[in-house]
Amino acid sequence: MKSGTIHGVGLGPGSQDLMSVRADRLIRGASHVAYFRKQGRRGHARSIVEGLLGRDVIELPMEYPVTTEIPVDDPRYNALLAAFYDKQVAQLSEIAEAGQDVVVLCEGDPFFYGSFMHLYTRLEGRVPVAVVPGITGMSAAWTATGRPVTWGDDVLTVLMGTLPEEALVERIARTDALVVMKIGRNLDKLRRALVRASRDDEAWLIEYAAMSQERIRPFREVGDSVPYFSILVIHGNGRRP
Amino acid sequence: MKSGTIHGVGLGPGSQDLMSVRADRLIRGASHVAYFRKQGRRGHARSIVEGLLGRDVIELPMEYPVTTEIPVDDPRYNALLAAFYDKQVAQLSEIAEAGQDVVVLCEGDPFFYGSFMHLYTRLEGRVPVAVVPGITGMSAAWTATGRPVTWGDDVLTVLMGTLPEEALVERIARTDALVVMKIGRNLDKLRRALVRASRDDEAWLIEYAAMSQERIRPFREVGDSVPYFSILVIHGNGRRP
Repeated sequence: MKSGTIHGVGLGPGSQDLMSVRADRLIRGASHVAYFRKQGRRGHARSIVEGLLGRDVIELPMEYPVTTEIPVDDPRYNALLAAFYDKQVAQLSEIAEAGQDVVVLCEGDPFFYGSFMHLYTRLEGRVPVAVVPGITGMSAAWTATGRPVTWGDDVLTVLMGTLPEEALVERIARTDALVVMKIGRNLDKLRRALVRASRDDEAWLIEYAAMSQERIRPFREVGDSVPYFSILVIHGNGRRP
Repeated sequence: MKSGTIHGVGLGPGSQDLMSVRADRLIRGASHVAYFRKQGRRGHARSIVEGLLGRDVIELPMEYPVTTEIPVDDPRYNALLAAFYDKQVAQLSEIAEAGQDVVVLCEGDPFFYGSFMHLYTRLEGRVPVAVVPGITGMSAAWTATGRPVTWGDDVLTVLMGTLPEEALVERIARTDALVVMKIGRNLDKLRRALVRASRDDEAWLIEYAAMSQERIRPFREVGDSVPYFSILVIHGNGRRP
């Protein structure tokens, strides 16, 4: 029997019409749709495709055994996650080996800091896998600010808020344009790093870019907490005729 | 009369079905479509939408007065380009002020190193402008390599090959994941910089990502020239369960 294909499909930043035409077709035609979610939640990826799935689609929610309850540097975190990914891969491979395609819904772009990557590296060589790139959350964020992010020879640096403060300070000071993701619990550290790099006045915070709750503020107006879907942007100032 | 809107529409990396559903709808329904091109050429943006435009669409090619004939640091370059953008903006504004919408076709993502940005900053405040983000060429490039580009806390740096060699060496040495664009005439300098940063063996060159001529090679196999649509990628190696 011919094996089915596992499609890792980028959904883009969250607005249904910002997914690609290829993603839209694959999702509407899918017999099996898999997606990550937190236990007890609907799942953000699943929400994005609401109304697009066929009537007889088989849904395969993949529920994280842990999200922020255990720190990522605790060995138990890695062990739990690895076992979880292995289990999902076994299930997805079984479906593909039975000749069925599976569409895995991926927020943003699958190969850019995405959870699908952990399935991908385990599926490679076992069953056919295809990846559909998507519009990144950061593209939606800088578009939302109404200002271009990179000009001419500008250097763009993309950082995770999870980095140590010293690393953040140094990187923020030495780039033209900047994107910071994974801000949540790292907000105070990030704020200190921006101030130390003397760039807090240039920063914008975009919450829920391209979603209905989208909100854009200068970073200096941000209070003590930000939602999970928050991205910080500093615009470059390169050459422009 | 109500003013029309100028839509800067990201086409994505070049495959028609990798444009967003929103872009696809705007382009199919457009009464006026504008796009940049080199004199005497069809224009790559225009090629991407072949077959999608309505029968009665009015096409507005915007032909660069200069591309690589004058160096970008020559004052004449800036003067020529500024006059060119001003002229296009006058034409687009006139159409919008007469109540018509115009779709401006933008390769990749409009706010990410795009020519549309030069129209955008001149149109702002004059007529309504809306921007549709797109899948970047770099997303298509790393997807084409079949390997995820950023993991865990990886730092991603995006560089233009036009930077001085010293800057390239230093930036390439100090990042986890790397993207380099605008390689063309900067290929030899970029190669020297990769060697000096001891990272030439990690680099991949992707030509025409997501297009029919797509080609992926280890950078060390690249000869003396690469086409305009070439992107260099070094993958990150961050945390993965």
